[in-house]
Amino acid sequence: MNKKLVGACIIGQSGGPSSVINSSVLGAIKTALNAKEITRVYGANHGIVGVLNEELIDLELEDINELDLLRFTPSSALGSCRHKLKDPNVDDSEYLKILETFKKYDVRYFFYNGGNDSMDTCNKISKFCLEHGYECNVIGIPKTIDNDLYGTDHCPGYASSAKYIATSLMEIYLDTNVYDYGNITVVEIMGRNAGWLAGASCLAQISGFGPDLIYLPEVPFILEDFVDQVYEVYKKRGKALIAVSEGIKDLDGIYVSEYGQQGKEKDNFGHVQMGGLATYLAQIIKVKTGAKVRGIELSLLQRCSAHIASKTDYDEAYMAGEAAVVAAINGETDKMVGFECSRENGYTCKTKLVPLSEVANVEVKVPAAWINEAHNGVTQDFIDYLLPLIQGETELPKENGLPRFAKLKKILVDKK
Amino acid sequence: MNKKLVGACIIGQSGGPSSVINSSVLGAIKTALNAKEITRVYGANHGIVGVLNEELIDLELEDINELDLLRFTPSSALGSCRHKLKDPNVDDSEYLKILETFKKYDVRYFFYNGGNDSMDTCNKISKFCLEHGYECNVIGIPKTIDNDLYGTDHCPGYASSAKYIATSLMEIYLDTNVYDYGNITVVEIMGRNAGWLAGASCLAQISGFGPDLIYLPEVPFILEDFVDQVYEVYKKRGKALIAVSEGIKDLDGIYVSEYGQQGKEKDNFGHVQMGGLATYLAQIIKVKTGAKVRGIELSLLQRCSAHIASKTDYDEAYMAGEAAVVAAINGETDKMVGFECSRENGYTCKTKLVPLSEVANVEVKVPAAWINEAHNGVTQDFIDYLLPLIQGETELPKENGLPRFAKLKKILVDKK
Repeated sequence: MNKKLVGACIIGQSGGPSSVINSSVLGAIKTALNAKEITRVYGANHGIVGVLNEELIDLELEDINELDLLRFTPSSALGSCRHKLKDPNVDDSEYLKILETFKKYDVRYFFYNGGNDSMDTCNKISKFCLEHGYECNVIGIPKTIDNDLYGTDHCPGYASSAKYIATSLMEIYLDTNVYDYGNITVVEIMGRNAGWLAGASCLAQISGFGPDLIYLPEVPFILEDFVDQVYEVYKKRGKALIAVSEGIKDLDGIYVSEYGQQGKEKDNFGHVQMGGLATYLAQIIKVKTGAKVRGIELSLLQRCSAHIASKTDYDEAYMAGEAAVVAAINGETDKMVGFECSRENGYTCKTKLVPLSEVANVEVKVPAAWINEAHNGVTQDFIDYLLPLIQGETELPKENGLPRFAKLKKILVDKK
Repeated sequence: MNKKLVGACIIGQSGGPSSVINSSVLGAIKTALNAKEITRVYGANHGIVGVLNEELIDLELEDINELDLLRFTPSSALGSCRHKLKDPNVDDSEYLKILETFKKYDVRYFFYNGGNDSMDTCNKISKFCLEHGYECNVIGIPKTIDNDLYGTDHCPGYASSAKYIATSLMEIYLDTNVYDYGNITVVEIMGRNAGWLAGASCLAQISGFGPDLIYLPEVPFILEDFVDQVYEVYKKRGKALIAVSEGIKDLDGIYVSEYGQQGKEKDNFGHVQMGGLATYLAQIIKVKTGAKVRGIELSLLQRCSAHIASKTDYDEAYMAGEAAVVAAINGETDKMVGFECSRENGYTCKTKLVPLSEVANVEVKVPAAWINEAHNGVTQDFIDYLLPLIQGETELPKENGLPRFAKLKKILVDKK
């Protein structure tokens, strides 16, 4: 544990947006504004890139009412980035720049709100500060709709996406079920390597208005079995609704979405850009069954649909931001806030701290025992785990029948 | 005007689903159940196909609480169809079958809930009954998210889709705006020949979180101009969000979505199947700008997202169903219920009746004066027209944090 520090703080956001990432930032900002140990509250403009470029947002100039709307506003209000810091042993120039910014603005607290890659960034900065004798408490605030962070029961952002996915699947089920002719619909859901999001479609099954089959990336995807399974459902019901994770891979570990697509772009982290899988699978099924088919990609909508966010999710996201600041002013550093939950005698959730080194770059997958034997659905355990997280409706204020999202001024501090 | 009749009624649904089509059916069912002139209340299983096959749903066996949930349940609860009746002068066999069903079950009231094609069906049946001396009052209940029916201020179903589209565009705007690098997003919105739905994205512009450019099918789409206009926005803002109607056509009247796609399937009405346009346009922009691009298709979600339905819309949809039954028992026939609205001194809406022959097969487009000179946006008139229609939030009951949609028993009457 670090000793108690007095100085400025920087709060940054990184990676893909979510419906509740700003609720975490709000929790951190408000707690920081009230903490006597924190002398100034800065936002990093576009995450670590803002720190590198010395672009700091003066959060104390924001209207408090607009700040409060962050609880309901999707996406990353401070701006995000996908910048990957180099290995400090190979090239430490960026770390030196970060340290320089920290020193210039007397930054003694750094809060970084993001997923796996962001926790890695957080961990590296924390270690670098320590090695260079610069006292700065670094705490990661978890965020990822993918729900794949280690050391926490679940990740803020996941539940709101899950609620959107389950609700949308129910609505798509009803839509595709009305005609007197057969049809098969494939819905592609985000999730590169973990099936938490595609698996969330199981909640739609509770009502009977859910997908017939669910395919996750945790188990190998065998195209022939898939076609047979879809055909079986179609023969019985005259329709079929299928949820697939974008990240399904075959026995050789090849992403099915890459079949026939050579030379696809990779992002800065080496991830392949996904998309088009639903249409591809739908066409394959069409050949086999002759049915009318449709591929639907939930795309960005599944990660930014704040209009149907889970109240439990944004309250917990806020709590995570709050806990990060409290931990840091108590002298904690190099940790991520995690959730410890109980589902016995009702659902409870409290925060805990997890060493960043344990979290960084680990991807938590759906447990094998939660996937059914046929590899085309999930078990009751998945439902029991997820259901408490999507409870409660959003209290997002409306203006003219449309969401009233926060509008920040984002005034940058003069460079020193 | 027909004389007052006593007998059974059939209520049917046809064409694509909407978020509020069942609210209209509920209005019709409840009014019919209470009308002393109506002796039995039947639903047509899959619209006119159910009448042809003598598949009638006994609506009096449904639980009243489940029926009441129809107000909030998307899609067509009685089942829909896309069956096109032949020209009776060429082949009247289907009309004779319909007449036979009507006679067998003493059907004196027929209510058909659908869009342009359904109003044509309605009109033909009405005329056929008249010509064959069979007294049956036939009233059309309007439904189409496309908002292209003649003789009404707007169509039930449109506003809920508009609310979904505007909200989603705001959320997509926020999502695509967070990164420190440029990106361009193209969102494809339904609407074969009328731009009402794509135009609805203008509501997102009110908040500043809307599309930069909007392209409607009412004006020719010139690919070169489109690319230039997107590039201009991108140069200024570093981002661009574009809403396009699936039905945009070039100067030769060719659908842009058909470029390079020979031999596409047509449905029973001769409509070409749409899709893939957003990705196509995004790729074209990528070549020109080098920007990161993404195509998003709102797909079925825009017509069935009852979780974000407009209260104004489902209340009016109910009113239309109610008005249809009231008109029929008052002796009206061969009419469609329409809306007469005023937007002066607040918004008011009342029902009226329009002759079906005037409505059938006419498509109402967005007025030319409501499209801007550059053909890439709409005017304030469009906003003033649409904004009152999306007011009010849904009161959809939830169970386990998910929608509690109606579950009808749909018990078929024994064939006579």
